[in-house]
Amino acid sequence: MSPSSSPPPSDELDRDVDVDELTGAELAEVWALLDVEERRRALPLLPRREAEDLFLARPTPEQAELILDLPADERRAWLRLLPPDDAADLVQHAPAETRSALLDLLEPATRREVRGLLAYADDEAGGLMNPYYARLRPEMTITEAMGYLRRYAREHREGPYYLYVLDAEQRLVGTVSFRELFAAEPGARIADVMRQELVTVSDDTDQEALSRLFETHRFLALPVVDEQGRMKGVVTIDDIVEVVQEEATEDIQKMGGTEALDAPYLATDFFTLTRKRAGWLSVLFVGEMLTATAMGWFEDEIARAVILALFIPLIISSGGNSGSQATTLVIRAMALGEVRLRDWWRVMRRELASGLVLGGILSAIAVLRFVVWQLAFDAYGEHWGPIAITVAGSLVGVVTFGTLAGSMLPFVLRRLGLDPASASAPFVATLVDVTGVLIYFSLASVLLRGTLL
Amino acid sequence: MSPSSSPPPSDELDRDVDVDELTGAELAEVWALLDVEERRRALPLLPRREAEDLFLARPTPEQAELILDLPADERRAWLRLLPPDDAADLVQHAPAETRSALLDLLEPATRREVRGLLAYADDEAGGLMNPYYARLRPEMTITEAMGYLRRYAREHREGPYYLYVLDAEQRLVGTVSFRELFAAEPGARIADVMRQELVTVSDDTDQEALSRLFETHRFLALPVVDEQGRMKGVVTIDDIVEVVQEEATEDIQKMGGTEALDAPYLATDFFTLTRKRAGWLSVLFVGEMLTATAMGWFEDEIARAVILALFIPLIISSGGNSGSQATTLVIRAMALGEVRLRDWWRVMRRELASGLVLGGILSAIAVLRFVVWQLAFDAYGEHWGPIAITVAGSLVGVVTFGTLAGSMLPFVLRRLGLDPASASAPFVATLVDVTGVLIYFSLASVLLRGTLL
Repeated sequence: MSPSSSPPPSDELDRDVDVDELTGAELAEVWALLDVEERRRALPLLPRREAEDLFLARPTPEQAELILDLPADERRAWLRLLPPDDAADLVQHAPAETRSALLDLLEPATRREVRGLLAYADDEAGGLMNPYYARLRPEMTITEAMGYLRRYAREHREGPYYLYVLDAEQRLVGTVSFRELFAAEPGARIADVMRQELVTVSDDTDQEALSRLFETHRFLALPVVDEQGRMKGVVTIDDIVEVVQEEATEDIQKMGGTEALDAPYLATDFFTLTRKRAGWLSVLFVGEMLTATAMGWFEDEIARAVILALFIPLIISSGGNSGSQATTLVIRAMALGEVRLRDWWRVMRRELASGLVLGGILSAIAVLRFVVWQLAFDAYGEHWGPIAITVAGSLVGVVTFGTLAGSMLPFVLRRLGLDPASASAPFVATLVDVTGVLIYFSLASVLLRGTLL
Repeated sequence: MSPSSSPPPSDELDRDVDVDELTGAELAEVWALLDVEERRRALPLLPRREAEDLFLARPTPEQAELILDLPADERRAWLRLLPPDDAADLVQHAPAETRSALLDLLEPATRREVRGLLAYADDEAGGLMNPYYARLRPEMTITEAMGYLRRYAREHREGPYYLYVLDAEQRLVGTVSFRELFAAEPGARIADVMRQELVTVSDDTDQEALSRLFETHRFLALPVVDEQGRMKGVVTIDDIVEVVQEEATEDIQKMGGTEALDAPYLATDFFTLTRKRAGWLSVLFVGEMLTATAMGWFEDEIARAVILALFIPLIISSGGNSGSQATTLVIRAMALGEVRLRDWWRVMRRELASGLVLGGILSAIAVLRFVVWQLAFDAYGEHWGPIAITVAGSLVGVVTFGTLAGSMLPFVLRRLGLDPASASAPFVATLVDVTGVLIYFSLASVLLRGTLL
């Protein structure tokens, strides 16, 4: 054990750090590297306030891991720290049989809030929202609002981001930021300073749409309202940073041909990790078997011209690579809202043109290689010309097919209501491999008939 | 043209919306779908305050696009709206020859700030930070602090996120949140309520480390200090949401085998798009040529047993797919800080085991297919047994090599100071293709000697 008094730069960090000697900020820095045992041991060693801040800042699965094995009274103390939205998340992460016991640990008022929140999916605005927020009335003066905020701040652990102005029916009629409150004359009415152009979401707005709204408007919080315009709660930007990372991670893992892990890589147990990869890998393998079937149809051609076989990996993988590029670009653009379903035709025209140009570039490299190797080593025999043309032509065809398949598959999946990110690089590559074999040998049959075949 | 009075759900959105009829919120919703001409036309149609809010919320490249062609006096009005950090970003995005003209449009005080910020790279804390923030003195009372904030709010367009307490040498000695300020007794001293455990960054902290700090601590803002602890500015969470998306987009594009586009897909012109894809595609193509070379060494074996050629795509692509999975998982875990350089050995052991298990599963599927096809169609002739064993053995070898190469390559790249995300799925697939050919034919030479070969 080599104790370390201040956190060293990330990558040289010594994992055998002595958790007993760290402050809250230092512990937060090395937290990701500790295992759950070390974390449970480290937390009570901190001053209470630092320990609470650290606990509150952790993502939900970790909070659950940290407190679920504690004795009931300690568990209660930690659980009651959480605002209702986070408490609801934690309850959702707990094993089903412990959930009602957890709910019983909450104060009755919070318990009701949490039960209400549990009805929402955790990737919707309703599941992310906090039902506590600072509410004002239009007829309040600025001084009255300040007085209310003073009480609010004493009762709540999280500061309000914005102030929401509700009418008597709890309908949202305006918002005021702290800056605007401070800038206003003390005697002015809230109704005079509030903003009335409202951007609101409903409780079933999904988290991807939500994060796009936060990016577009640069708000710190967005109000959730029901169909009658009644305020239900707020979604705050700190949850959105987590959402954005989670969504990107999920998409990246799917694009890589894995099911989303839903947990850090090193924290995922070996069985789960392997299972989440084996599914797609097996499906792709069975699909890829079609290449063997397709090549079987051309066994005679291969027997007569073994040289044709040499270029198979080169040709099909070029299609796979261009397809990976196209699918990745389109999936990401869709996730960011830059490309929508109705853009498919624009994307298709672009990708068709891209495919032809990229295929042309690779063909040129291939032809150059044929010419140089042929002149230098007589590598490909007397029929090298037609072979070169076959390879070059196949490259244009396969690369163009790859970019088209890669770019259109995400549209097809989204149109079918599936996740575009499932059009993973390996999936597209497999699709293009099978087609690539067919394109290559079909072209060879035509171009080499009478010479090599 | 079909005018639309309220923004319809994203995917059915009519692109031919009439921009003249939209409110600020509606315009923000459809903004991504408008081209630059429509945007320039739409902005002045809005009430001034809504137009300003919309402009302020846009990412820098768009702000530049919107104002750079305007007459100088209009350009000045827009430019002066921006806080210094955003103004510096905009100047950085402008063509080099217009930069000093832009700087001249700023007020002298702001111009000095902006010049200072221009010295920082825009992916470091220094480049993201805003030099304006609300500063307090430890000896102020709460009432005095409130009075100061009132003046601050009137002078600045962005509200402060936290209040920073500086000593006489401008060293940061504490922070106070709004909640804490409101909760405190009016006569209390700032020194009594401020938090003294500080999390700070320096101006060269890179944006990936920065976004991890925001996630770990759930702060709304982080102070930037120099080596003497003197406060330089603040980085705020709204910039971080953008950074997180940008970093994920960059990584995703690199993982897909493209250079990072640095602009929305549909906004990237065809030439740039093609150039950013052609580079890697050509490099991979030249690498993939080695498969032809490698297979050339085994031309005699293929001629004697054409059946061997049929399984080449199946075997090498399985290695490529498992390699894509591994590299994607590891690159993302590194980007999230879940896996560090020194974890390479843990990752390697896991991936070795994963590779063997996954390879085993695919082998089992392959053997099943051989047995069924052989019994049903006598598909592979008298030597089907040794062929099946060769294919199955190669699969274990190639898949294991794929996961190892895919998982270790990001470590190697990071160790060399390069971006781990360059270990793209296509790159790993190409590497594994070449090795896969060698593994397969070497195993075949040994196992089939005396029978087929």
